[in-house]
This record gives sequence, C-alpha cells and structure tokens, in this order.
Amino acid sequence: MSQSRADDAPAELSRATAQRLSYYLRCVAAVPAGATVSSSQLAASVGVSDAQVRRDLAALGHLGQRGVGYDAAALAAMIRRTLGTDRGWRAVLVGVGNLARALLRYRGFRDQGFQIVGLFDAAADKIDHEVEGLRVFPMPKLKEQVALLKADLGVLTVPAEAAQTVADELVRAGVKGLLSFAPGILRVPPRVSVVTVDLAIQFEQLAFLVNHGPTDGA
Amino acid sequence: MSQSRADDAPAELSRATAQRLSYYLRCVAAVPAGATVSSSQLAASVGVSDAQVRRDLAALGHLGQRGVGYDAAALAAMIRRTLGTDRGWRAVLVGVGNLARALLRYRGFRDQGFQIVGLFDAAADKIDHEVEGLRVFPMPKLKEQVALLKADLGVLTVPAEAAQTVADELVRAGVKGLLSFAPGILRVPPRVSVVTVDLAIQFEQLAFLVNHGPTDGA
Repeated sequence: MSQSRADDAPAELSRATAQRLSYYLRCVAAVPAGATVSSSQLAASVGVSDAQVRRDLAALGHLGQRGVGYDAAALAAMIRRTLGTDRGWRAVLVGVGNLARALLRYRGFRDQGFQIVGLFDAAADKIDHEVEGLRVFPMPKLKEQVALLKADLGVLTVPAEAAQTVADELVRAGVKGLLSFAPGILRVPPRVSVVTVDLAIQFEQLAFLVNHGPTDGA
Repeated sequence: MSQSRADDAPAELSRATAQRLSYYLRCVAAVPAGATVSSSQLAASVGVSDAQVRRDLAALGHLGQRGVGYDAAALAAMIRRTLGTDRGWRAVLVGVGNLARALLRYRGFRDQGFQIVGLFDAAADKIDHEVEGLRVFPMPKLKEQVALLKADLGVLTVPAEAAQTVADELVRAGVKGLLSFAPGILRVPPRVSVVTVDLAIQFEQLAFLVNHGPTDGA
C-alpha cells in the first residue's frame, strides 16, 4: 500500500475532507486555464465557510496568496495528487447488467484516470460475450485475470444477495479497493477499502431535503 | 412544501445527520422484528461514536431505555418519518439509457417507497417505446405528464451537457426535488432540492482510501 501512498499528504486527512476536496476539484475544473480561484468562490460553490476552505487547502500545504487566490491548475493538480487520481487505476467489474453497461460508457470515470479493464459474470449465457469491447469472463477466472490485467480495484454491480460472496472473491484475487453498487455493508479485511454507492440512500436524502424545505435551510 | 413536511422533526436537522439516519436505518433493518438495538451496535456498524448515535436519536425525540436499547421497529419507523420515506414518492425520469434501465429494475427504490412513474427522452427513436412497462414520452409532454402522474421528483440520467436544460424543464414542470446522475452542479430555485450522484466522486473517494491505507486509518 505504501508505494501508492501520497507520502506528502497528511495521514490524518479525514474522509469528510477528502469529500470536500472532490467538490473543490469540480469547482476548480470549471475555471479557465491560467485563472485563479478564491476561497470564497470555492466556499460558495460547495456550500461551506471560507475558513473551512482555507483550512482544508492549508492542510494540503497549498497556501493561496492573500488577495490573489489559488492558481486553478496548480490547485487541481495538488487535489488530484492528494486524492490519488493523478495516476491511472485499473478495475475489474463483476455483474454485467444494465448498470455495468452504463458505467462502461461513463466518461466521468475515464476523465479521472479510472478504467474498467475486465468483466466477470456468474451467468453462463453472458460468458465470452463482448460488452463495450471487453470479453466477459467466468468467475473462476477472476484471480488469474486480476493478476494478468494488473487490476487494483473491483466494481460490484451484482444483486445484494451475491455481494458479500463476490467481495470475498475479489479480495482473494488481490484487489485493494471495492466500489460497490449493492445495498448493504460489505465485510472486508482492513487492508481493503470499500466505497458503497447505495442509491436508496441518495433517494432518502432527497426525500429528507424536500420534506424539510429548501437545500440551504436543511 | 409544508404539507409534506414532518412537522415534529427538528427543522435544524443537518444533512450530515440525515445521512447518518440513513445508515442507522440500514443497520436497524438488519435486526429481527421485535428485537432491540443498542447505540453501541449502531455506532459500530456506522463507524461513529456511541455519543453521536445517542445525540442523533435524542434529536428525533426517541430516547432509548438505558440498558435496554432501542426497539428496532419503532426506531425504523421514526427514522423513516424524519427522512420522509414513510410515504410514497413519485418520480419522472428523463434520459432513457442503460442507467435508466438499471434504476427501473432497482429494488432498493421500491422498498423505500420511491417509484418511477414516467419516462421522457429527447431522442425521436425512443419515443413511444415501452421500457420496463412504461411508455417513453417526448420532452414537450413533460409538464402535462408531471401533473397527470402527480410526480414530486425528477430523475436525471442525461449527459452532462443536457443536464441544466433538463433540470430547468423539470423545475418548470413543478417537481420539488431532483436526483441527478449527471456530473456538475445544477442551478435551481431555492424551493427545489437537488441530490447529485456523481460517480466520479465516488471513485475519487475510493482512490483516496486506497492511497491512504485502510478505511479506519483514513
């Protein structure tokens, strides 16, 4: 793990900070090349205080010049380095359905250096078919292919009831991180990281916001 | 808005709290009917402190009995009421591609009372086709159909460059909330709530976690 670690990034950077960095990056990416961006622009676009922005960016070692703001390109590069998206990531995907097809076509992944390089499914009628230019392999080939394809990450687009078994197989195959679209909590060894995209939670949050009035008041 | 508001829920409940409530609900749902759940079980499963759990749940007006814990069913009902998922939500979806098909089949939505009741697309070759039992309408029918279908929410599964225009049309059609899968920030009037599912951000967070070592240390 240490070789892929951004050694100059503070180890105590929290997940909440990392999430804000992702949002700052979206704002910075919208600024024309060569321009600067102020902490108050970032604060307004993300919905946090100026002081929070300055604290977050100071923790990266990047101090804007007073009255000048942050150089957008340099700030974007530093955020990417901290998040770890300044290098390529290779992922295998398990569960080749509609969501998988949508992810394979999703430009936002490739733009951030995230590439799906192998497809796997348990259903016999999907094996050896090509989807978006990639052949679908059977699950018993997972470990061999993860090594051959030099994949770091696994994407789970399988039904909830299959998710833990597939996660176990991906962990055994050697991936370091899982991006799961299956609802529920996955149990993995501490050396493996998991991000779960639970779409029902996103909907619940929207219901909450609509129920409790406008975004700013929530 | 006031008629759909949970009037007994504290108005100052933050989005971060709402997110934790979603996670508690996942944990509570895993408990057998009639059983109780302790604040330390909830804390361990969500990864926050015991005190945080007790504070969050006390803010809902639901105080567990010391040494007994929370009645799982009552707690689940109270969280759903606060989030606003104790009633049905009807949504129209714009952009009928692979992601839309995946969402239409996603059981997690229906289980939480979220129903997609109308489909819309700008592409002439999709109009009037049936997808998962729903007919695809052309965009000029949006306003009329949102009223006929009594839809509260809009789901955007359109390319990034179309998202703002589609969001404007959904707002004009009268929806109160948007669930957007298009990257980027949508500008909407304050009476409309937005939740954006930016998949590239989810990937960035995973890259960050893998880069910075195990989940607990991040």
